[in-house]
Amino acid sequence: MNEIYAGVDLGGTTAKIGLFKKEGFLIRKWEIPTRKEDGGKHVSPDIAASIRKAMAEEGIPMEALAGAGIGVPGPILPDGYVEIIVNIGMRDWNPVKELSELLGGIPVKGANDANIAALGEMWQGGGKGHKDVVAITLGTGVGGGVIVDGHIVPGSHGMGGEVGHMVMDWQWPEPEACNCGNYGCLEQIASATGIVRIARRFMRKQDTPSVLRKADPLTAKAVFDAAKAGDELAEQVADYCMMYLARALSYISQVVDPEIFVIGGGVAKAGDYLLELVRKHFEPMITLIRGNAQLALATLGNDAGIYGAAKLAIDG
Amino acid sequence: MNEIYAGVDLGGTTAKIGLFKKEGFLIRKWEIPTRKEDGGKHVSPDIAASIRKAMAEEGIPMEALAGAGIGVPGPILPDGYVEIIVNIGMRDWNPVKELSELLGGIPVKGANDANIAALGEMWQGGGKGHKDVVAITLGTGVGGGVIVDGHIVPGSHGMGGEVGHMVMDWQWPEPEACNCGNYGCLEQIASATGIVRIARRFMRKQDTPSVLRKADPLTAKAVFDAAKAGDELAEQVADYCMMYLARALSYISQVVDPEIFVIGGGVAKAGDYLLELVRKHFEPMITLIRGNAQLALATLGNDAGIYGAAKLAIDG
Repeated sequence: MNEIYAGVDLGGTTAKIGLFKKEGFLIRKWEIPTRKEDGGKHVSPDIAASIRKAMAEEGIPMEALAGAGIGVPGPILPDGYVEIIVNIGMRDWNPVKELSELLGGIPVKGANDANIAALGEMWQGGGKGHKDVVAITLGTGVGGGVIVDGHIVPGSHGMGGEVGHMVMDWQWPEPEACNCGNYGCLEQIASATGIVRIARRFMRKQDTPSVLRKADPLTAKAVFDAAKAGDELAEQVADYCMMYLARALSYISQVVDPEIFVIGGGVAKAGDYLLELVRKHFEPMITLIRGNAQLALATLGNDAGIYGAAKLAIDG
Repeated sequence: MNEIYAGVDLGGTTAKIGLFKKEGFLIRKWEIPTRKEDGGKHVSPDIAASIRKAMAEEGIPMEALAGAGIGVPGPILPDGYVEIIVNIGMRDWNPVKELSELLGGIPVKGANDANIAALGEMWQGGGKGHKDVVAITLGTGVGGGVIVDGHIVPGSHGMGGEVGHMVMDWQWPEPEACNCGNYGCLEQIASATGIVRIARRFMRKQDTPSVLRKADPLTAKAVFDAAKAGDELAEQVADYCMMYLARALSYISQVVDPEIFVIGGGVAKAGDYLLELVRKHFEPMITLIRGNAQLALATLGNDAGIYGAAKLAIDG
């Protein structure tokens, strides 16, 4: 019998779930609401019941379910223990043990959501065919996941790949604080909100006319669209923000030397234009490595997490 | 019979060799000259003959030799292939295959010398008891090795842990070029030569009296000795250089989140004074990780490489 694996990507609003064949074929994907009431005690039972229901609807016996993986939005210890998930309000939780019990004792694996997304992109996304991959997500914040030899680097405090809080701008001190309390984090410059922040700063400091001055709302997409259309100020903003991202990639390269960086998240919808900007800055930053890491766009979008969670289960 | 493992640390002048028991006991260590003539073709036979001789002198039958590891001063591919070792003048060499053949077909493993030193410090040195370790060597240059879950991260171009060439000083542009061609590398600031360079710069730019102005030769040791004795200018130099090192450690933490950094090399002979300076800067740099990585001094000195090479063989 073909083995089936479930991949769960738990978020604060919904849990995304997918059923996969071992070689990577997605049989079915769906979402269920994340019920936060009662300290989140319904979360695991809801997920398990939903998987059982979907298996039945697909006509697949539960015996075929060989394993499951789950990504959670916060640090998770190797044994599955989660001290706290802030945006669900859960404490002292072990989704790995709970899901295993609720699914008849099958093996279950857990990891941080940014890390399973990186694993998903390595398996079936922008990093397919590679084993040393660093994925960077440019969304509301900047997240990341480091994959070495096909495996997630979770970090000893669950903070592997937390590249959004590399303090990049410290020699010219950044006056505004990041959510983390530091000043000058990559997230303050290269996230969707960071790019808007930098655009506002450039507009305050320059008189250059720009379509961005009338943009309502002013978004990272508006900045990249204007830059692509030749708006000088927007070009400066995009160039500035992607230069900082490139600098961070150069540091990451000198620590783990990946084959490829996979860049995703809402900001990365700017596509090849963004990739070319990053590449322009990144290539000359490393003189020691002949043939730097490749740069590619993420391809799985919001499904990266369920792919990665399933891969986590398949790898065992 | 107890299994014995050989660890070889190949350098441009000598090869250090050690025989180890599996649990880490060093039976014997010695050095042989690295013969560079004839394109280095004597290197592997010399090492193998020397191991056979030492085994015989110890009264251990060759059948007890269960494996060997070798660290080489340059990039080495997973199959042992070495394209070039600049400081021995060797090209197109496979020490792993050659040593295995010369030692009766035993398994042989190879890695970069900075990486085996890191593995050695994890196994029996300053990082003992940990599995997620980053070792930093502050010598003539700055080298490093990244260990995740007990294994070396070699990097896809053999450049894992090459942290000496993280360009740390780029917002206030550094006018002098590093050996790598970049400007502002960590190595230009925190190596023995870098510290001297920064001391000279501070002396040029300030009138502060200092014992360093009469130091002959001016060395990193002289800087740290003067700083420990309360020399104001020397304190400034040590603080400046270790602040940059701490910043690099903060970046490394946000990529691989190690349990411990192990700092070695000649500069680290400044001991706890140096460690405290780095810690003072490092601790506040990361706000996201509760309980940052520990900082410790390397303890194996020049033997780190042979320990790590043996461990590489033991891990198979």
